[in-house]
Amino acid sequence: MQYVKIKDVIVEQIESGMLTPRQKLPAERKLAESFDTTRVTLREALSSLEAEGRIYREDRRGWFISPEPLRYDPTQTLNFTNMALSQNRKPKTELVAAKGMLATKEATRLLELQPFSDVYRVDRVRYLEDRPVVYVTNYIRPELFPNLLDYDLSKSLTDIYREHFGVVYQKIRYRVSTTSLLGETAQALRATSGSPAMVVERVNYNQNGDLIDCDIEYWRHDAISIESIAQLER
Amino acid sequence: MQYVKIKDVIVEQIESGMLTPRQKLPAERKLAESFDTTRVTLREALSSLEAEGRIYREDRRGWFISPEPLRYDPTQTLNFTNMALSQNRKPKTELVAAKGMLATKEATRLLELQPFSDVYRVDRVRYLEDRPVVYVTNYIRPELFPNLLDYDLSKSLTDIYREHFGVVYQKIRYRVSTTSLLGETAQALRATSGSPAMVVERVNYNQNGDLIDCDIEYWRHDAISIESIAQLER
Repeated sequence: MQYVKIKDVIVEQIESGMLTPRQKLPAERKLAESFDTTRVTLREALSSLEAEGRIYREDRRGWFISPEPLRYDPTQTLNFTNMALSQNRKPKTELVAAKGMLATKEATRLLELQPFSDVYRVDRVRYLEDRPVVYVTNYIRPELFPNLLDYDLSKSLTDIYREHFGVVYQKIRYRVSTTSLLGETAQALRATSGSPAMVVERVNYNQNGDLIDCDIEYWRHDAISIESIAQLER
Repeated sequence: MQYVKIKDVIVEQIESGMLTPRQKLPAERKLAESFDTTRVTLREALSSLEAEGRIYREDRRGWFISPEPLRYDPTQTLNFTNMALSQNRKPKTELVAAKGMLATKEATRLLELQPFSDVYRVDRVRYLEDRPVVYVTNYIRPELFPNLLDYDLSKSLTDIYREHFGVVYQKIRYRVSTTSLLGETAQALRATSGSPAMVVERVNYNQNGDLIDCDIEYWRHDAISIESIAQLER
């Protein structure tokens, strides 16, 4: 069977509800037998379905049917937990690491810092229904948030900013691009190295127009749909 | 040599300016020799560079260094030509097809039509410096734009709407996701089937709040960087 036909069969089974979100597909060997095809052709079909966000792979565990992507409006909803809950999803956040450090090249550029500036770096993995979907790194200007590292950073940063420092986001610059997951980021998302990813980079300003932090998000590309509405000025 | 090291060497040559945008890389066989590596390992390095948007492949022509991506603000600049010119790029638009037809399933959903409605469909390929970068399909409600097909549709649609029908975009809903290029779309962009792509879907409303058209854009993923600024309401 041609790979396009195999794809069509699997898509049809997803759309008819025979295959349901998070369901595991049979092993590749078994699938190749069922479709009476070679492993090479089957792989081609699976890679194409992965690229379209229909299925995803977990490292060493196999292929699964993708749930609906999370609708993510970079201009509106800033809090992962509330965004997930409002879409009837089950969010979880895991703190990977938090520390003070010399700003990296990337942090220096995004936060418009002088060379040799200090920053906080906070790394977190966010889950939907116990599946890791995004790896987030925040770089934060420490002078605005003394002792930030003493707080529970598995909670919303924007909540901590607001409740403990009286700081809210007023303006956001964001950039969306695509890449592939590699190394530790791939590992934290249980992804095979090279899996497609969507990158959202945000730079955030407070109510005085000061640049306060940035975040760099590596999303499993099938887990996110960026959606927004713009009112145009004329 | 490991593929990660090969990648590092090529990235360094790009960043130092030794490899310049649109420059062709040597043939894979030659590259593998230079790096004293196998074709398999070389391919891994090239695929990874492609996923990161550093290089791109043109079907049967080989690998090339990616130019800077076009900065695309879905909330602001609506006219490809002006957007490209303002970034010192050389835009070109090619009309692929334009016709009246029964709305497809996709058009019916996006334009919120009754079953068996008529639409115009306009397909175009847009170029930067003679490289095809995006395949755009517009579906348009015909009752608002009688005889639209008589105009030169290689020109800006928004210009035609405004100048000949007094219609401007007032509100835009957009959605960004990723997929891979297949079939005719891949061919029109001179891409190998399966190349990574970014999809921008837009639904556009006029000054009376009527839904007037939608466009579905398949971008070579390295050719676009979606960037915007949001002012938050509190």
